[in-house]
This record gives sequence, structure tokens and C-alpha cells, in this order.
Amino acid sequence: MNDVIDRLMEVLEARRHASPDSSYVAKLHNRGLNKILEKVGEEAFETVLAAKDAGNSDKQAHRIEVVKETADLWFHTLVMLSHLDIPATEVISELESRFGVSGLAEKASRPPE
Amino acid sequence: MNDVIDRLMEVLEARRHASPDSSYVAKLHNRGLNKILEKVGEEAFETVLAAKDAGNSDKQAHRIEVVKETADLWFHTLVMLSHLDIPATEVISELESRFGVSGLAEKASRPPE
Amino acid sequence: MNDVIDRLMEVLEARRHASPDSSYVAKLHNRGLNKILEKVGEEAFETVLAAKDAGNSDKQAHRIEVVKETADLWFHTLVMLSHLDIPATEVISELESRFGVSGLAEKASRPPE
Amino acid sequence: MNDVIDRLMEVLEARRHASPDSSYVAKLHNRGLNKILEKVGEEAFETVLAAKDAGNSDKQAHRIEVVKETADLWFHTLVMLSHLDIPATEVISELESRFGVSGLAEKASRPPE
Repeated sequence: MNDVIDRLMEVLEARRHASPDSSYVAKLHNRGLNKILEKVGEEAFETVLAAKDAGNSDKQAHRIEVVKETADLWFHTLVMLSHLDIPATEVISELESRFGVSGLAEKASRPPE
Repeated sequence: MNDVIDRLMEVLEARRHASPDSSYVAKLHNRGLNKILEKVGEEAFETVLAAKDAGNSDKQAHRIEVVKETADLWFHTLVMLSHLDIPATEVISELESRFGVSGLAEKASRPPE
Repeated sequence: MNDVIDRLMEVLEARRHASPDSSYVAKLHNRGLNKILEKVGEEAFETVLAAKDAGNSDKQAHRIEVVKETADLWFHTLVMLSHLDIPATEVISELESRFGVSGLAEKASRPPE
Repeated sequence: MNDVIDRLMEVLEARRHASPDSSYVAKLHNRGLNKILEKVGEEAFETVLAAKDAGNSDKQAHRIEVVKETADLWFHTLVMLSHLDIPATEVISELESRFGVSGLAEKASRPPE
């Protein structure tokens, strides 16, 4: 199980049932779906604002901001999936099948004839 | 190179320089950062709407919609990162360091003493 | 009935029951709440992107874009209110009461003693 | 000066130059364009979430929430316009010209022949 997303989902599942006082993830689940989706929305706008700043200037600080905001956005979508009991692996599979990535990988790993 | 995200980024990089007529990814890059960010925004709202529907009803169709919209959202953020020449691995590293996932993995892989 | 918003709401109500083939407003209602909310979301992101461009450059074109996108955003929220049978005047009243605007107006209109 | 939007813009302009400690509007301007646009984004998502809840249930509480969130959204777009020195009347004019509302009003006010 090398995949980071898989491991993240495990951590998120474990924290889901932790105390809302000690875990931000548990607190989000406790506040409910609307609160989680508000956070997804906030992070989407913050990602877009950071990307605009990075597009307008080469400053390293803007690039770091894009990385942080995108991480926040992906993280909150993972919490959303967990809240809805949808495995993130289904999203990964969807991306794989769209981009023929598994296909490509399979092809690349085929032994030469 | 087992990681799906890594392979996806390779595909996205390859398609970035394809003809805008033959590749949706090339077309997005060609239309510029604002267009890519508009798509990130659209998909964020569509993800949230699908999640609300899934939260209100057990219908399998709603769950499938959440998976598809989340895939669209992640995909367009990957195109955004590629457009800004920011490796998606930096976002993954950010998530790993926040959640101590590498730490966990490292711990788990330690040989028993 | 001097208020533009009032008149706009009248036009929107009239078009709501027009043929979806001849009226964009009727078409939106016909496609349902999710479609209307997707448009609200799209216009919100387009407004924010236009505002960033206007904040980074004095070009008149960017200012015109902000005006157009904000008009699109307000327009689609008015369609949303109409779809939910919520009078836009309730939103105006909410703004008035928050900002004490009616109070101010009342004060200003008092006859000099 | 009957128009609520006009009066709101006056209040917003007056508060823009107030102390950030005493006025939320002054505080927003002081924190800058990105902060104002983050608020526009947040309120857009909160409006959409409230509208979904109102679409799924007749509860009066949901309708009140839609009114409040839409007021928040309009309010923050007004602050955005003020920050960019764009008069809100330009947005109103844009809506009037699109919907031929002035035209309608003019027609209605024509003296009978």
C-alpha cells in the first residue's frame, strides 16, 4: 500500500471517530456536511486567488501559497468523501480510467516480446 | 513509480504540448490561466451540489455524481499546477507532512526489534 | 415603483413563465435549481477573477469586465430567488436593516425644525 | 435619491475611511482585495448551500437563511466594487440595459396619447 491517498484516507477514517476536541477532522464531521462543504468552497476560492497571484508574479511565496491552498482543497474534499462514505479510491479509479493511466502503465510494464 | 498522481502528471505534461485541436488539456493551457481557474471554480460548485444531493438521498446515481465531480475538480487543479509549473508532488508532500503520513509509513515499515 | 431591483424582479417573473425556447430565464427555471446554482457559482468565480485582473492593472477593459461579471452574478442570484419564490425585496430589506439605511433616509427626509 | 443601492454605496463609502477597529467595512478594505474576494467566495458557497436546503424543504428557517446569505453576498460584492472604485450604479445600468428595464419604465411613464 504505497499510495499516499490510501494512507491519508486511513488517517482520515481513524480521526473521524476521534474526539472533536482533539481532532480538526472529527470536529468537521461533527459540525456536519454543510460545514465541510463551506470549507471546500473557501479553499477553492483561496486556491484560485493564490494561483492568480502566482500567475502575476514569480515570487516563491506565491508558489508556496498555491501548494498550501491546493493541499487544503484536496484535504477538505477527502473529508467530504469520508463523510459521505465514498472511498477516495473511486475518484482515483475514475481519473485512471479517463486518462488511460492504468492502461498506459500496463502497456509500459509489458515484457518485450 | 506506482503513484497514480505521478503518472497522471506525466500524462498531463505530455498532453500540455499536444495540439489544442486534439487534446482538451492542450486546449485549456492554450486558453490561459483564467480559463483553467474558471473550470476549477465550476467543478468546485458542481462537487458541492452533488455532495448535497448525496447527503439528502441514498440514490447510487448521486454517489456516482460526487465521484465524477470530485475527479473533475482534482483533474482541473492538476492542470492548474502544471500551467504554473508547480509539481503536484509538492502538494502531496505538503499533505504527507501535515498528516505525518510518511512518518506513519516509516514507523510501520520499521523492522521489528 | 422607482426601484430597479423591483422592476427587474417583475421582468424575471414574467419571463419565468415564457417558453424555454425564447427566454434564457425560462430555460434556466426549466433546467432546475442545480443548474441555476451552478451558474451562480460560475459567475462568482468569474467576478473574482475579473476583480483580481482589475486590481493588478488599470486597463479599462478589466473594469468593464468586473461590471459585467457582477451584473451576471446578481442576475443569477435574482433568478435563484425567483425559483425559490423568495422576493428580492426581502434581501433588500435585510441590507437596509443591517446598514440602517432606511433610518438614514428617514432622518435625511425629516423637515428642518 | 430613492434607490437603496445608491444609499448603501454612500454608507459603504463613508465607512471605507472609518477606523478598521470600529467598522467591519473599513477592516475589510484594510485587509485588502484578496480578503474581500475570499469573503465574496465564501458567501457565494453559503448562498448555494442555503438554496439547496430551501429547495429540499419548506422550512421557513431555510428561506430566511437564503435571504441572509444572499444579502451577505451582495454586500461583499458592493465592498469589492467600492475597493476597486467602480460605482455600483454601473452594475445597475448594465442590468437595466440588458433587460430593457429602463425602456420598459420609459414606456410605462409615457403620457397617454
